[in-house]
Amino acid sequence: MPNPTAAMLVIGDEILSGRTRDSNMNHLAKALTDHGIALQEARMISDDHHTIARHVRDMAKTHDHVFTSGGIGPTHDDITAEAVADAMGAPCGVRDDARAILQAHYDRSGQELNEARLRMARIPDGATLIDNPVSAAPGFTLANVHVMAGVPKIFEAMLEGLLPTLTGGAPMISSSLRVERGEGDIAAPLGDLADARPDVSIGSYPFQSNGKHGSNVVVRSQDADAVETVMAKLRALFPEAT
Amino acid sequence: MPNPTAAMLVIGDEILSGRTRDSNMNHLAKALTDHGIALQEARMISDDHHTIARHVRDMAKTHDHVFTSGGIGPTHDDITAEAVADAMGAPCGVRDDARAILQAHYDRSGQELNEARLRMARIPDGATLIDNPVSAAPGFTLANVHVMAGVPKIFEAMLEGLLPTLTGGAPMISSSLRVERGEGDIAAPLGDLADARPDVSIGSYPFQSNGKHGSNVVVRSQDADAVETVMAKLRALFPEAT
Repeated sequence: MPNPTAAMLVIGDEILSGRTRDSNMNHLAKALTDHGIALQEARMISDDHHTIARHVRDMAKTHDHVFTSGGIGPTHDDITAEAVADAMGAPCGVRDDARAILQAHYDRSGQELNEARLRMARIPDGATLIDNPVSAAPGFTLANVHVMAGVPKIFEAMLEGLLPTLTGGAPMISSSLRVERGEGDIAAPLGDLADARPDVSIGSYPFQSNGKHGSNVVVRSQDADAVETVMAKLRALFPEAT
Repeated sequence: MPNPTAAMLVIGDEILSGRTRDSNMNHLAKALTDHGIALQEARMISDDHHTIARHVRDMAKTHDHVFTSGGIGPTHDDITAEAVADAMGAPCGVRDDARAILQAHYDRSGQELNEARLRMARIPDGATLIDNPVSAAPGFTLANVHVMAGVPKIFEAMLEGLLPTLTGGAPMISSSLRVERGEGDIAAPLGDLADARPDVSIGSYPFQSNGKHGSNVVVRSQDADAVETVMAKLRALFPEAT
């Protein structure tokens, strides 16, 4: 059975202006690979209600899971919860369970649960809360859409709680070989091997570092034996590789 | 007149598996912001012919420019040139001008222009070459699609040559204020200011560092006077900010 599929939406004008460098996509990609869920696409989009809703609607139809990051804080530009609710046809308002979590958190820290902070308790009807062990304000899962915070520490903590609840497939096994020869030198035998083994993914990624250049060849499959067989062939083709 | 718009396609399975962390999107985002072109969306997709062609076709219709990175090397998994040509309805084969560039480069380095390396001379009919001062193999512009390498040094060098040839708009002016108060404390006055000044983009981005937490408030507009007026109001609202 093929592995479940996923897409990601990174939401925020600060990413598209270049002011902030996203790191959540790479973190999610690695975690999903380990869990046996195939990340097929990631999109970075702006803080705009209709833009968010349109992409959520598109992606929720074509993937088993959609993960979002960003836009669930207390300020006027945090509009992800409403946009996702709108996309999925669910009403959205302050929910008692989320309010209770925030109230307890702000009581402990002696801060006021004011109107702005209460915005973080807006959760669509029918959604399940995602725990936030860092700063309390929860994410949520609505149908197959998982809505999480943009701050990397919070995103990562939310994902750590969420991921074990999702059914994964066989994890992708990968192995790699560093060949200190240009891609143009190894492309022909590599292409022949890729043609002979369509069951295995063989990628070639050029590198340049410390005045050396060459190719990292990466072999990937859910079948560990197939990976090892292809790696043995590669080591025979490029005996100098490490 | 509104600024020209752009979208980016980052192509490569190694990005989606998490093995490689993309840096080209952030580089492009900053360069376009400085040049007055609005990056509206970025998508990270896999090395698959139909996937690449479908996204190029979609994005080329809805944006003034599409920038791609990745998949133009000599190996079997480098399929971007054909996929882009297919998307735009242009034939694609080895072109004499690109071949001459590669021939001169490999003659200088004493390497053979073999069949694999010759794949890097496949350029769609009607495309303009993009100079590659690092490793010779050119990118290309076909209609409004700019196809560049995935290796960051090469991507950056190609962009440096390309960008001055594209018409930019008024660059976005931005200014920011660091407020050592949680977003929940500043959200109400910030929201009122954002409502009062819909002509200016006001974003709030929480930070946590060295045990302190707070919000970076970023004000953006093409009108420098408008940015300064709003910044003055922010400094009055949050006199302790830096």
